[in-house]
Amino acid sequence: MGEIVDIIIIGAGPAGLSAAVNALVRGKRVRIFSNRDNNLSKAERVDNHLGFYHMTGKELMDKFKEHAEAMGVKIEDGKAVNILPLGDSFMVNVNGQIIESKKVILAMGISKVKELPGEGRLLGNGVSYCSTCDGMLYRGKDAVVWDQSHDAWEEANFLQSIGVNVTFISNKPRHENLSDNVKYIKGRIEEIIGENTVEAVNTGEEIIKTDAVFMLRDAVAPDTLIEGLELDGSFISVNKYMETNIPGLYAAGDITGKPLQLSKAVSEGLIAAQHAALQIDKKES
Amino acid sequence: MGEIVDIIIIGAGPAGLSAAVNALVRGKRVRIFSNRDNNLSKAERVDNHLGFYHMTGKELMDKFKEHAEAMGVKIEDGKAVNILPLGDSFMVNVNGQIIESKKVILAMGISKVKELPGEGRLLGNGVSYCSTCDGMLYRGKDAVVWDQSHDAWEEANFLQSIGVNVTFISNKPRHENLSDNVKYIKGRIEEIIGENTVEAVNTGEEIIKTDAVFMLRDAVAPDTLIEGLELDGSFISVNKYMETNIPGLYAAGDITGKPLQLSKAVSEGLIAAQHAALQIDKKES
Repeated sequence: MGEIVDIIIIGAGPAGLSAAVNALVRGKRVRIFSNRDNNLSKAERVDNHLGFYHMTGKELMDKFKEHAEAMGVKIEDGKAVNILPLGDSFMVNVNGQIIESKKVILAMGISKVKELPGEGRLLGNGVSYCSTCDGMLYRGKDAVVWDQSHDAWEEANFLQSIGVNVTFISNKPRHENLSDNVKYIKGRIEEIIGENTVEAVNTGEEIIKTDAVFMLRDAVAPDTLIEGLELDGSFISVNKYMETNIPGLYAAGDITGKPLQLSKAVSEGLIAAQHAALQIDKKES
Repeated sequence: MGEIVDIIIIGAGPAGLSAAVNALVRGKRVRIFSNRDNNLSKAERVDNHLGFYHMTGKELMDKFKEHAEAMGVKIEDGKAVNILPLGDSFMVNVNGQIIESKKVILAMGISKVKELPGEGRLLGNGVSYCSTCDGMLYRGKDAVVWDQSHDAWEEANFLQSIGVNVTFISNKPRHENLSDNVKYIKGRIEEIIGENTVEAVNTGEEIIKTDAVFMLRDAVAPDTLIEGLELDGSFISVNKYMETNIPGLYAAGDITGKPLQLSKAVSEGLIAAQHAALQIDKKES
């Protein structure tokens, strides 16, 4: 499992990178994971973040990455699928790899994905966000993989390879790397059906019987990442130090709510990292 | 008195400039006043404000000013000495000039100046921060001006010119522009003496009888600026929108407390300005 990390940062937008820079300045061992482009990089023009006039979101993100990399920040490709608090540390599952960390900062931003009917209710009972974690439960059974992220085909292939009968539903043409043994259906999922466990999905065109649905979205709803996380609407509740209700777990950036602004994200990343670093130092001194 | 301003911003450091930029972006009429170099411009090196790597505080401030000026922000030289809430607006006294404003954002940063013994107790009873405001009360009487700012000599000359007998106390050599009619004493003030009104000052070397003390500091303690302002220690208490306990009055930056960090100041300036602009729009729609 490797050495214990001081701070894991999930998300490498403005909040995550600001947290990384500030954790490093305080001498902390950091790992930072990202699995998608953040919203800033899609912004056409940003004028209201002091010091940067008339820049595209992409230009700003490049500046931010340049700064972070100059200080030794290495952004790793990966999606956190589960976080388990152990009291004094956390076990973080990043694409099936388990990493132990003293503190965790959530900085995934917000995504516009809506929950499907049935999804929340059947989560853990056939609905899964992580094929590496739950795949083995469905050996010899049927599973649907819904293509919601750039690497969903890999997950489908993985499930197939461990003996799951996989149907891949996607609104894109069949991915060239998708295994020949995976069934492909062009379309989307509108509803997940089942009493206590998943029984089928409704594509709007047909009902497909299945034992499991893997929803491999780029973004994971924060409260499905960690149990008992307190939300305020769809945002994560934090105090002035960016602490969530779970000790040692922080949140920063758009994920904590309005205003959804760059300046706020940068500030919250800093506050979370500085506070987390301070708590680590206190514990160790 | 001129037209009513939407937002007056007091202080033109990172928080004040971020507020100005964001108020302008929201189409608001803004005036921003500054009367001293801010702490950032004295910083030797800043590494932890995302997007700016390895810069001096002065280089950063120059970037910030450049951005603000490119958007039409004009920083005016001036010190706010009093703010009077009128319910729906404020009367702000800037060096004796009264300006009406719908909202006010305090962003003066922090200064390391300590209050003198007797200062708070006798404020308004002989202790004054504003010669233009209170000077006329001391025509034909004695006043001490304590040199605590770069333009204190001007204030001394002004008081002398309106018929006050002025003694100028300074730890610097006699200023070349100080009027010949002003008495100069090299030294400092350690205590202000008086039962109900000022009677004398103690320089540590001697007791000097006087009717008034003008303390012309670059920074004014925030709670002497406006009555009833709620503090948390020496910082101003704010909620998540950067509102103080006085409706329409905001605070942003170091003045609201730790961490005393650039990223936080920029964010708080934005939050205050956006919220203030929104409230103005609501009222007018």
